[in-house]
Amino acid sequence: MPRIADHDTRRQQLAQAAAVVIARSGVAAASMRDVAAAGGVTTGAVTHYFPGRSELIAAAYDQVMGRLADRLEGPDLAALADLPALAGALASFLPHDDETRSDWRVWLAFSAEALVDPALAVRHRAHYAAILAAVAAEIGGAVAADLLVAIIDGLAIRILLEPEDWPRERVLATLAAALPLFR
Amino acid sequence: MPRIADHDTRRQQLAQAAAVVIARSGVAAASMRDVAAAGGVTTGAVTHYFPGRSELIAAAYDQVMGRLADRLEGPDLAALADLPALAGALASFLPHDDETRSDWRVWLAFSAEALVDPALAVRHRAHYAAILAAVAAEIGGAVAADLLVAIIDGLAIRILLEPEDWPRERVLATLAAALPLFR
Repeated sequence: MPRIADHDTRRQQLAQAAAVVIARSGVAAASMRDVAAAGGVTTGAVTHYFPGRSELIAAAYDQVMGRLADRLEGPDLAALADLPALAGALASFLPHDDETRSDWRVWLAFSAEALVDPALAVRHRAHYAAILAAVAAEIGGAVAADLLVAIIDGLAIRILLEPEDWPRERVLATLAAALPLFR
Repeated sequence: MPRIADHDTRRQQLAQAAAVVIARSGVAAASMRDVAAAGGVTTGAVTHYFPGRSELIAAAYDQVMGRLADRLEGPDLAALADLPALAGALASFLPHDDETRSDWRVWLAFSAEALVDPALAVRHRAHYAAILAAVAAEIGGAVAADLLVAIIDGLAIRILLEPEDWPRERVLATLAAALPLFR
């Protein structure tokens, strides 16, 4: 069914275009017109795939949270032999290149937006529940998972807002100080 | 000089009115008119004290960050005798009542806004530098302070966005798991 595959691919491309706009300008500034421009299509083409702005914004959020979850769940944290290896895996998950910086910027924009948008808050809770369950299975329990995710989220904010002050060595040193808790 | 004192008091009251509006509706939605309404004054009275919206928003941010810093620096963390006492002090710093919830909501809204507002990012860095220095002096070094602040910020986001899932016992359990790092 090539048409359905095309349809899904197109939706994903437009959701990614929305994520790019949100990473650059924030959720409030992401209009259908801006997303169309970022995706190189007409506004009419966007509304063909997403009847309203809220569906498009939700799709962008789901795509970014999916990528963040895939990245965190990619390496087998439990199998990493030593603390430096674990710190390195977590540092690579945090903002450190254009793609991860963009995804984390979207994460922060949506975290704030979820404060005032109940539908987004429901989505946020569902994404976090899935991520926490996966992390808890790897590192030994729900409390440890809450703690590790808090450390990662808290560091992500610092790195995003003080990028020049957070070279990789500082990220690694901070993670290394925490990791004895998880072994 | 009572008139100057009045002027400062009035500015602080309006900054607080702005913080209330931002906590409820987000930064983007906080107009001079909304702040005037929340403060029980006319828009003209607001512009008398704050010539532009950006000055008012900045004053609200400074006031909230000042309160958060005062709350964190209030108890002498180094002097707290045992881990439960330290966990309790940190839990009281996190969102747990109307006032702390409102301040942390403003913090999250501004953290996202700082991504797209360079002047706010400069303010954010200055507030964090002061908080980190104070925490580092109490708990033993810059790396430990980075880690503790990351844990607090990461937990604050979870508590704000999943308030029903984070009763005080869960906050205390998560903090207690981290505290061996700081003793």
